[in-house]
Amino acid sequence: MGTSANAAAGGRGNPVDKGVDYAQYFCTYAFLYHQKEMLSDRVRMDAYFNAIFENKHHFNGKTVLDVGTGSGILAIWSAQAGARKVYAVEATKMSEHARSLVRANNLQNIIEVIEGSMEEITLPEKVDVIISEWMGYFLLRESMFDSVICARDRWLKPTGVMYPSHARMWMAPIRTGIGDHKMGDYQSAMDDWHNFVDETKTYYGVDMSTLTKPFSEEQRKYYLQTSLWSNLHPHQVIGTAAIIKEIDCLTATVNDIEKVRSKFSLAITMDNMKLCGFGGWFDVHFRGRGEDPAEQEIELTTAPSVDCGTHWGQQVFLLHPPTHVSEGDNLTISFLMSRSKENHRLMEVELGCEIQQHSGKLLAPSKHKYYIE
Amino acid sequence: MGTSANAAAGGRGNPVDKGVDYAQYFCTYAFLYHQKEMLSDRVRMDAYFNAIFENKHHFNGKTVLDVGTGSGILAIWSAQAGARKVYAVEATKMSEHARSLVRANNLQNIIEVIEGSMEEITLPEKVDVIISEWMGYFLLRESMFDSVICARDRWLKPTGVMYPSHARMWMAPIRTGIGDHKMGDYQSAMDDWHNFVDETKTYYGVDMSTLTKPFSEEQRKYYLQTSLWSNLHPHQVIGTAAIIKEIDCLTATVNDIEKVRSKFSLAITMDNMKLCGFGGWFDVHFRGRGEDPAEQEIELTTAPSVDCGTHWGQQVFLLHPPTHVSEGDNLTISFLMSRSKENHRLMEVELGCEIQQHSGKLLAPSKHKYYIE
Repeated sequence: MGTSANAAAGGRGNPVDKGVDYAQYFCTYAFLYHQKEMLSDRVRMDAYFNAIFENKHHFNGKTVLDVGTGSGILAIWSAQAGARKVYAVEATKMSEHARSLVRANNLQNIIEVIEGSMEEITLPEKVDVIISEWMGYFLLRESMFDSVICARDRWLKPTGVMYPSHARMWMAPIRTGIGDHKMGDYQSAMDDWHNFVDETKTYYGVDMSTLTKPFSEEQRKYYLQTSLWSNLHPHQVIGTAAIIKEIDCLTATVNDIEKVRSKFSLAITMDNMKLCGFGGWFDVHFRGRGEDPAEQEIELTTAPSVDCGTHWGQQVFLLHPPTHVSEGDNLTISFLMSRSKENHRLMEVELGCEIQQHSGKLLAPSKHKYYIE
Repeated sequence: MGTSANAAAGGRGNPVDKGVDYAQYFCTYAFLYHQKEMLSDRVRMDAYFNAIFENKHHFNGKTVLDVGTGSGILAIWSAQAGARKVYAVEATKMSEHARSLVRANNLQNIIEVIEGSMEEITLPEKVDVIISEWMGYFLLRESMFDSVICARDRWLKPTGVMYPSHARMWMAPIRTGIGDHKMGDYQSAMDDWHNFVDETKTYYGVDMSTLTKPFSEEQRKYYLQTSLWSNLHPHQVIGTAAIIKEIDCLTATVNDIEKVRSKFSLAITMDNMKLCGFGGWFDVHFRGRGEDPAEQEIELTTAPSVDCGTHWGQQVFLLHPPTHVSEGDNLTISFLMSRSKENHRLMEVELGCEIQQHSGKLLAPSKHKYYIE
């Protein structure tokens, strides 16, 4: 399946096939139900609403580009905040609904909806502001920021401003019952497999035991190594959180984000705990630019929260088995996230963990492979 | 999104893009978990096992082609039944597992596993038997039979035999509680939508009411018009079943199956019932060919059954609202199933229903559109 695998690989020197990219990625955004889910995320909506309306000086009389406009919401707010002209680009047929919404809100003289990908469309002019809600799970899943970078390099004026202006990836040690569930599911799947192999030999005369190893690898990957969506409670965070990556949206290149490589420390702050894994999340900030700052800096965070959870949740990376830790223990984490060869919008993570107990004793380091699917 | 939509359309004169076809269809078959599900279907396994081993005369010393070999099971049985040579063709990387299974069962001198699509690969010779498990939900979902036809036209000897030899699509009137659930889900989705429109106007100053109509169409399609998988109990069948389509696997062309057009009658046999919709299923038979018949004819049916359910279940097409019917009422059904423009492996159904009550009174006819996704 050489051709098909490469078709989704993407990345420079290996362009993604448009049809495959649509079948694997874009198509979900063509559904109103999916748009509604994002539009119903009040934390997300409030952050962008406030970022725009508390910083009208960035929009009033200015030109704006909304990358991946979806329903058109950010374009509409930009126009309502006084923009002279807004270009709202959307790759899917959702653009037709955006156009209808623009008209229904009387903004067709300001907002031009353009159906197409950022990489292909042409604008009549450069813009003062690029606004986009491009963040995926754990920030970079979906690799949509590549399209924002493309938009910025082609269409942002030298004096232009990015909304948001900054982004960060975070990680913290956590406890969770999910790990035990998933291990149970994995073990059930393997028990079931062994019965299946016995029965297939007995009743059908075919020995399938040679497939046990690849089956267990497939199931291990599915149940134990694939990061999970979760809405973590702050009490599940058992230590300090660390910044894995910081992105300046004005200057970051695709090269900067293709591989995320980091080494950081996490201190355990709760005593007598099970370290069940790690939670990953992100935040973005709307700060404007040095020479043209926001009047009101706005933060959108997806950190574990009681009341302010978002549709992004956090990504959970499980440790099997969990490790007993104590207050004062220190974790040295080496983190490497890269794009999947088969699909540049999905990620693979190699995580190394070395625990130094508060006594000073160093435990044997461990290595873990994860898939963000 | 012209390019991407066409890329999946398929059909003659509009070839399917390989990468898109893989992303949308083939990829699920590359998972051992999915193969195991099919291999664990005892009704399916027993039918093919018996079809082969009770008709060894068709296999002994003969050449066989297994179209879409998956794990290789049919190829292995064919070899065990005495085939001289078996070509096992598989489009996904599952072919590597098939090769490993062949070797583990000591059949590498008989079975040659070939990775590729039937449309592209070349065999060194024509074959005596083409065996394949190609049937999708309601028989033709997935349109895999196209590949079997291609294999037959290119590689079957003039005296060759098809396994299975015949296939039929069936439909019957049913009662089910699922319809009420789905209507409830749809109504909840719409209630939620109306709240969402109010809140978005109140808190965010954007009027989304123009999207109510497309949203309701999208939700209607999802909840009410998409056929459902179900394992129907025979007691849910409230009338006679009718054959919609008969296929002779030796002679059928793609043209014969691209559109399935039929008019048939269904008699209600239970009194004072709610007609909630229709159940669709299929059967296949292993009869050999006229000049070289099976010694033991085997049937594989997916009709509603207490003990012999299969992983195919039946497809349920709901009527909203349900209609009250009585014993002796007669339904005249016009049925047209065609391939989806966006994806030739998915189907659209136009179903017309005219009820003649046992008194002779004719009720107003109704028309319904369904999607087999």
